[in-house]
Amino acid sequence: MKTFGKEYGFSTRGNGSVIDITGHLRDTVRESGVLAGQLSVIVPGSTAAITTLEYEAGLARDLPEFLEGIIPSNVAYRHDAAWGDGNGFSHLRSALIGPSMTIPVSGGQLVLGTWQQVVFLEFDNRPRDRKIHVNVIGE
Amino acid sequence: MKTFGKEYGFSTRGNGSVIDITGHLRDTVRESGVLAGQLSVIVPGSTAAITTLEYEAGLARDLPEFLEGIIPSNVAYRHDAAWGDGNGFSHLRSALIGPSMTIPVSGGQLVLGTWQQVVFLEFDNRPRDRKIHVNVIGE
Amino acid sequence: MKTFGKEYGFSTRGNGSVIDITGHLRDTVRESGVLAGQLSVIVPGSTAAITTLEYEAGLARDLPEFLEGIIPSNVAYRHDAAWGDGNGFSHLRSALIGPSMTIPVSGGQLVLGTWQQVVFLEFDNRPRDRKIHVNVIGE
Repeated sequence: MKTFGKEYGFSTRGNGSVIDITGHLRDTVRESGVLAGQLSVIVPGSTAAITTLEYEAGLARDLPEFLEGIIPSNVAYRHDAAWGDGNGFSHLRSALIGPSMTIPVSGGQLVLGTWQQVVFLEFDNRPRDRKIHVNVIGE
Repeated sequence: MKTFGKEYGFSTRGNGSVIDITGHLRDTVRESGVLAGQLSVIVPGSTAAITTLEYEAGLARDLPEFLEGIIPSNVAYRHDAAWGDGNGFSHLRSALIGPSMTIPVSGGQLVLGTWQQVVFLEFDNRPRDRKIHVNVIGE
Repeated sequence: MKTFGKEYGFSTRGNGSVIDITGHLRDTVRESGVLAGQLSVIVPGSTAAITTLEYEAGLARDLPEFLEGIIPSNVAYRHDAAWGDGNGFSHLRSALIGPSMTIPVSGGQLVLGTWQQVVFLEFDNRPRDRKIHVNVIGE
């Protein structure tokens, strides 16, 4: 039994960026040498999220458009009144989708579907330098 | 310390199916022999999700109806234009709820409330044969 | 490698209560002695949720208001017709946000952003005595 952690960094273009991070997660599993166990990944920050999605151009626009519909970016939230950075919507979208997820590891592979990628969702209203932290634990 | 993984298969009737998978998870904990640790469960696929719900007939219809309201199935998403399978809504609902979850194990039991079941939510627009993968890690 | 579990209790004022539980999670990591691994936290119950949020007064009202907009509390859900406790909305919000989350541990610390707190969201339509269960696993 062992545990292995790693960070990866990348840049985003701000709200609407959908980034496929599956490769980073697979690399972490491989480097860890873990054959069976669990992977946990998080974005440290409260204006982005992590989930899974079939990573193709259509859905990469459908998902931000859906979120724009239920949490509009042009509405004044109480957060904006207090802080003036205009990204209240980013915080709400992050709390809704969630900043972390866990994925089982089996046979040295992440247990994911063929058309299922792990994606980083940028919600902040400006380009950001981001990092994700990945931990693998198992044997 | 050890880790133990198992898969379970079942069939769904398509979008709107809500299936109680708590028994499968409890079986996995029992077979693992783990008394304290963490369970992780995932559906490998991007048109379904896993969460918890009081599993009763009312909520099993309320939840799909709520999702139909915010992510309608009769809207043309960009995904549908590209792929023609008409299940863009299924992908969005899956990304929103999430395909996996983690549950602590204590005293050889899943830490859940009395009226809290782990449920599989089918969103795809046709009956599917599904599997879930469960991993338990601990001592 | 070891695993360590702990429960914490607190009271809420009912739907709309947003409670910062980050301190409890940090305490659990410290007591566990785990330097690298994964933390899992759950609320055993189907009318509350756990996520992360920048914990400040504005967002602590924005988030419940957003949820009130998409899952109104004054609507009759099928759950209410069957059970008469009027908290169908609480169950739906819990299933949407989710009752648990996982956070990597690195260098003996939870991997979170500076302005990112782990929050407990009460959705039930009355004050509740709540508990959360935290498990840490790692080395």
